[in-house]
Amino acid sequence: MRRTVDWADGAIVIVDQVALPGEYRTLVLRTVTELVDAIQRLAVRGAPALGAAGALGVALAAYQGGDVRAEADRIAHARPTAVNLAWGVQRALAQLPHGADAVLAEARAMLDEDEQRNRTASAHAAELVLDACQRRPLRLLSHCNTGHLATVAWGTALGVVWHLHARGLVESVLVDETRPLLQGSRLTAWELEQAGVPYRVQPDGAAAAAMARGLVDCVLVGADRIAANGDVANKIGTYGLAIAAAHHGVPFVVVAPTSTVDKTIATGSDIAIEERAAAELTEFGGTQIAPDGAAAFNPAFDVTPAKLITAVVTENGVYR
Amino acid sequence: MRRTVDWADGAIVIVDQVALPGEYRTLVLRTVTELVDAIQRLAVRGAPALGAAGALGVALAAYQGGDVRAEADRIAHARPTAVNLAWGVQRALAQLPHGADAVLAEARAMLDEDEQRNRTASAHAAELVLDACQRRPLRLLSHCNTGHLATVAWGTALGVVWHLHARGLVESVLVDETRPLLQGSRLTAWELEQAGVPYRVQPDGAAAAAMARGLVDCVLVGADRIAANGDVANKIGTYGLAIAAAHHGVPFVVVAPTSTVDKTIATGSDIAIEERAAAELTEFGGTQIAPDGAAAFNPAFDVTPAKLITAVVTENGVYR
Repeated sequence: MRRTVDWADGAIVIVDQVALPGEYRTLVLRTVTELVDAIQRLAVRGAPALGAAGALGVALAAYQGGDVRAEADRIAHARPTAVNLAWGVQRALAQLPHGADAVLAEARAMLDEDEQRNRTASAHAAELVLDACQRRPLRLLSHCNTGHLATVAWGTALGVVWHLHARGLVESVLVDETRPLLQGSRLTAWELEQAGVPYRVQPDGAAAAAMARGLVDCVLVGADRIAANGDVANKIGTYGLAIAAAHHGVPFVVVAPTSTVDKTIATGSDIAIEERAAAELTEFGGTQIAPDGAAAFNPAFDVTPAKLITAVVTENGVYR
Repeated sequence: MRRTVDWADGAIVIVDQVALPGEYRTLVLRTVTELVDAIQRLAVRGAPALGAAGALGVALAAYQGGDVRAEADRIAHARPTAVNLAWGVQRALAQLPHGADAVLAEARAMLDEDEQRNRTASAHAAELVLDACQRRPLRLLSHCNTGHLATVAWGTALGVVWHLHARGLVESVLVDETRPLLQGSRLTAWELEQAGVPYRVQPDGAAAAAMARGLVDCVLVGADRIAANGDVANKIGTYGLAIAAAHHGVPFVVVAPTSTVDKTIATGSDIAIEERAAAELTEFGGTQIAPDGAAAFNPAFDVTPAKLITAVVTENGVYR
């Protein structure tokens, strides 16, 4: 699979995640405005992929001249919750005194690193899962999308599935569809299909019932921001999943590169949570679902306290 | 609001719940085959409404002659989980020796009873909620649809909202959209809109986050079958909601008429759970969401153990 976020011919090239699974196509982003738009409408998404896109965005701004720091700031604030976005922007921006080529070189190095870090983090997590779960082959549960599409390549939580599947140790993956934007049924299911891993999609509300029936050996999720105390902000629904996993004694494992850890944030309650438009819930594909003018509670993320998490796993190892 | 299920001019008349909220229209069902089809595609749904529809279906069969008991059996087995359906059929069928008019009279009596029982049960539950929750006005959380549309009239869990709203005690209702068939955002939101009760729809996965933020004073749900030990089968997602409510110390109240109690079933693990088609998850309004041929885990209901339930409330009172 090609990289989800890359640089080619002076522009950012992304896999268009809004078009999947109907169509696999790439978008070429030639301006910061196009990038910010792509980030806000989730054509590029996933914390590690956002970090890479942010860094490449600074390179784009640097080549185009003008107020690069202001443009960088605009990118960093395109969405509030994933710390990787601001992290990628800041790291690339630090090279600005050395010129646009240096900014691009730094951004490209970050792309290489992202794949390597995710491969390493998910390898550590795969060993943890094998230690924590007795059953073979394994039945894993996935929320949102944490695969190739959420990163430059490979993936975080879904990267664990790739490692274990390569060893013949995965029976199947239960895929939370992940409302409202269906990153599970659209993106994770597509990645599993491509990789030949057996899977079933389920309503988010069925996860607890699946655990009660003994169908889940381990829950694997990614993260958008990890506070210093180990609290994890991740896609809405993660917190309820963690409560249900704890209730059933099912291991709940978070996999993320260290770029997702924000040591400036003491606890999860300090993490800014993006609230998204009601239309994500009240309409689907142009069809209205709810009554005219229905209001919504639509936070994109929730916070799972560290005490409900079996382990957070990064490229540096396992943190229980 | 007219009755959701009624009898007119020798036929069953139902509010078409597939067309809402886009269109409020009625369907006239003139044969048992039409009724079974309406039940299976959820044009009529909700345990109490299914009981009424089942009873009227026996009257339809009785007037049309033929093998009434075989027809009754076909209705009773149209869907497996809501015990009210078989209960309604059996009660109407008991009048068959007295002729078709007697069957219809019994069915009509059941329609009258349903509204009265639901009004009484939800009045008991409203008092329980006022005892259990200190805050005024109240912020309530609803799952699936348990209002007029789920019953002949009035509603069960949503009936509690009607009682409390009439006394000015409801601040707002958080409405779980209730995937896959969106009975919350389509039907409950529509009923609340009609009644002028403030509400917000939310993804099912946001309920735990709403509790963590202190936005939920009480969770109110209905039931499709209640076992002798108090375990409750209800719409998928109810169980996860109950775990989250218990985790946060939020009262979790089940409201249902006694026709939903099945004393022949010892515990929830003995309740047959309907598994529905993958297409409910993998398609929406003719648009494909998930990859071609995606499999699904799509149980229509789950089972909440009695120990997670603050109280089950019927027309006969409160059972803790």
